[in-house]
Amino acid sequence: MGTIFLFEIMGTATLVLLGAGVVANVVLTGTKGHAGGWLLVNFGWGLGVFAGVYVAYASGAHINPAVTLGLLSSGAEEFAPGIAVTVPHMLAYFAAQLIGAFLGAVCAWLAYKKHFDDEQDPGAILGVFSTGPEKRAYGWNTVTEAIGTYVLVLLVLMFGETPHELGPLAVALIVVAIGASLGGPTGYAINPARDLGPRIAHALLPIGKKGSSDWAYSWVPIVGPLVGAVLAGGSVQLLPLLGAAG
Amino acid sequence: MGTIFLFEIMGTATLVLLGAGVVANVVLTGTKGHAGGWLLVNFGWGLGVFAGVYVAYASGAHINPAVTLGLLSSGAEEFAPGIAVTVPHMLAYFAAQLIGAFLGAVCAWLAYKKHFDDEQDPGAILGVFSTGPEKRAYGWNTVTEAIGTYVLVLLVLMFGETPHELGPLAVALIVVAIGASLGGPTGYAINPARDLGPRIAHALLPIGKKGSSDWAYSWVPIVGPLVGAVLAGGSVQLLPLLGAAG
Amino acid sequence: MGTIFLFEIMGTATLVLLGAGVVANVVLTGTKGHAGGWLLVNFGWGLGVFAGVYVAYASGAHINPAVTLGLLSSGAEEFAPGIAVTVPHMLAYFAAQLIGAFLGAVCAWLAYKKHFDDEQDPGAILGVFSTGPEKRAYGWNTVTEAIGTYVLVLLVLMFGETPHELGPLAVALIVVAIGASLGGPTGYAINPARDLGPRIAHALLPIGKKGSSDWAYSWVPIVGPLVGAVLAGGSVQLLPLLGAAG
Amino acid sequence: MGTIFLFEIMGTATLVLLGAGVVANVVLTGTKGHAGGWLLVNFGWGLGVFAGVYVAYASGAHINPAVTLGLLSSGAEEFAPGIAVTVPHMLAYFAAQLIGAFLGAVCAWLAYKKHFDDEQDPGAILGVFSTGPEKRAYGWNTVTEAIGTYVLVLLVLMFGETPHELGPLAVALIVVAIGASLGGPTGYAINPARDLGPRIAHALLPIGKKGSSDWAYSWVPIVGPLVGAVLAGGSVQLLPLLGAAG
Repeated sequence: MGTIFLFEIMGTATLVLLGAGVVANVVLTGTKGHAGGWLLVNFGWGLGVFAGVYVAYASGAHINPAVTLGLLSSGAEEFAPGIAVTVPHMLAYFAAQLIGAFLGAVCAWLAYKKHFDDEQDPGAILGVFSTGPEKRAYGWNTVTEAIGTYVLVLLVLMFGETPHELGPLAVALIVVAIGASLGGPTGYAINPARDLGPRIAHALLPIGKKGSSDWAYSWVPIVGPLVGAVLAGGSVQLLPLLGAAG
Repeated sequence: MGTIFLFEIMGTATLVLLGAGVVANVVLTGTKGHAGGWLLVNFGWGLGVFAGVYVAYASGAHINPAVTLGLLSSGAEEFAPGIAVTVPHMLAYFAAQLIGAFLGAVCAWLAYKKHFDDEQDPGAILGVFSTGPEKRAYGWNTVTEAIGTYVLVLLVLMFGETPHELGPLAVALIVVAIGASLGGPTGYAINPARDLGPRIAHALLPIGKKGSSDWAYSWVPIVGPLVGAVLAGGSVQLLPLLGAAG
Repeated sequence: MGTIFLFEIMGTATLVLLGAGVVANVVLTGTKGHAGGWLLVNFGWGLGVFAGVYVAYASGAHINPAVTLGLLSSGAEEFAPGIAVTVPHMLAYFAAQLIGAFLGAVCAWLAYKKHFDDEQDPGAILGVFSTGPEKRAYGWNTVTEAIGTYVLVLLVLMFGETPHELGPLAVALIVVAIGASLGGPTGYAINPARDLGPRIAHALLPIGKKGSSDWAYSWVPIVGPLVGAVLAGGSVQLLPLLGAAG
Repeated sequence: MGTIFLFEIMGTATLVLLGAGVVANVVLTGTKGHAGGWLLVNFGWGLGVFAGVYVAYASGAHINPAVTLGLLSSGAEEFAPGIAVTVPHMLAYFAAQLIGAFLGAVCAWLAYKKHFDDEQDPGAILGVFSTGPEKRAYGWNTVTEAIGTYVLVLLVLMFGETPHELGPLAVALIVVAIGASLGGPTGYAINPARDLGPRIAHALLPIGKKGSSDWAYSWVPIVGPLVGAVLAGGSVQLLPLLGAAG
């Protein structure tokens, strides 16, 4: 339990610090990376995962409730070496990931404090913390998040089958890919904690020109990723059966 | 057979979902990655291959008829461990790759559904699904596709000779390279299934403002890659003889 | 001592040659990479670390006083295989890193000599050598530098815990990440030698239109990184205790 | 001899096909990657090296006279396993690299044939084939090429000292770095064959609007790289002595 809490908090905080940080760099006024482009955002988040996975290695480096739920759905027996798949453990992962994401967003706010103070656009401020859709349509937005998370969790579950020595780089590159390819409509939360934790931080922090935290949308980047994760976990259980029967 | 079908479908679908997705992100109106640049497109497709190869590892991860044909042309004895090089197996690969590419394009359409609904430019819509030339000249377009595919298949066949521990990253980076360097004239199909499957999807899906599926061009990204693949397979057979005789 | 001096000088010079070089390419007038964007700068510095780590491998490849101090703070027993953690060794690292950074900046100036000669903007010239804040607020600028360096040193110290075969690429990608995500406010020195050595070079070199070397800011990219390094080293000592007690 | 000729020709042709290709994509009118930016060019050339090293693995993957000369200068005993360092072997490497670079440029021209036919700017056409300086000053241009090549050859010679499992990716990333950081003034030939072979192709090929092949500059990307290579080879011989004596 101590391992789960400590390392998932640290790892998810690292992920969100770097992920929220790159968005701050691109969208806030007067930064060195202002308007730096979508590929810059994709690398920032992807390498945020890269860093977070190293930091959270001891707890299996989920740093995402969708990964935890995907492991459960896949029939795995351990969340990490020595940590059995149980509901209390799952809830500990979820809580630690949410706390870590909150703390990472606070650190990103501190790193960009002066830029937040001077920012005039509430949409830019919220965009650093949480995702939002370009075209608001809750059903389709949920579909987009589910598809992106399905790819993420499927790949995480299949890495074990394929020899390579990339370590955390493999999942980092998958996150770059999902951002580049499937992030266009909703900004690719693909991780409920990554979206909810910073949204809570946005609601609580004293940021001058901030507007609404857009709670009406907040369930989409929770439900979509969890649906995608369950489908990916189920797929991994079905694949060997289907392959043998084909 | 079951292994070929299941994993080639899944892998090619993953490839085309991410590849078509990044084009949707860059060319459709109102996405977060709109006008994100050619390097973003190259990384999207390259990492689509990265993901697809992991997913299709059990079937040898061809996810491209040109790779299957290149292996045949090179005199290889197996398409994957335990799967002999036979014509029925080759046809199974081809069919699975085409089906997978079709399904991947449908998933990309679902992920960007609202953006497709609102898109006014038929050229942008077709561009998400299939390649098209900047300067229409079927002969030269075929040459360009053959050269790009030659590089791809040559490298795939030579990876086995060179020690590294990159796994699927090596072929992913080669695809980034081919896109960056040889994709300028035709958009680098370098894979007949990647082009034909989504073109069929474009023809069948109910997309409001879509125009022609440009069937007049559709043979170029089939013939060019197959020619390049046969030449690459032949090169690999000749290289040791030439090297010894030089 | 000879090993420390020689390889830390060579490695830090390589780092700063490539790092200052990419900024020269992006900010000086008339270069091929002019206005090439923030991601180009991030890759230039990240791959500068990549190259510098190979060059300085024999001395443990610190090439950054924050790494040296972080190792000390973490309770490590050796700075590199065969080099004990002692204060004289630490001072040798610091001196070599400062000398190397100075020499690297001189080489970058030579490589871009004609562009420096013709440059009219003193701010662009100083920007090649040393970092500067977008919004001058010494306290918050120090916080930003401390956060960025904390991430860097924490990751360097944790790489040993996580299996991978990336070698120097892992730290290079972390530096790309910190630049992309946390470099927006201050330009991410995250290395006191990288900032001070080139600032001295800026003060001494005969560059036509150069202005002030901005000594008023020069303590921020020294103090911030050293604070971040000590905090990261302390974290690594606390983590196992916290994990066990959690 | 047969191995040297065949694989150095194939590998250098692959390098130049992808390298010249990415410049064609960025500078020629009407391509999909037109004006795609400097980082795209850097990745194209860097991954061109990546591909070329795989193809030329059997001959030691020099694909650059500066690497061959650097190995000689470093006191190495073999150019590749089984190929002794001798002057006839060196000349065979040089000849094969030049022929390969010529052939690669011809292939790039074929891939972009229609775009060359329609191009109105002779400077853009020559830029696909050979490098040229932004500010013409033969002495300083030579210095820039020597510094860039020094970094390249030093790193190639030091890779053997540092454990990693990246294979050809390491040198590819160094070339991305040199392009990003040191390519601004002269376009980073850092390889005499890469510049001279395509320049000969430019002079011979029937391209409508081409202008001068700029032979007045052609010695700079030969002399600069060879000087850098000899200095790097010498450094590697001195480093152990200096380290021990320091």
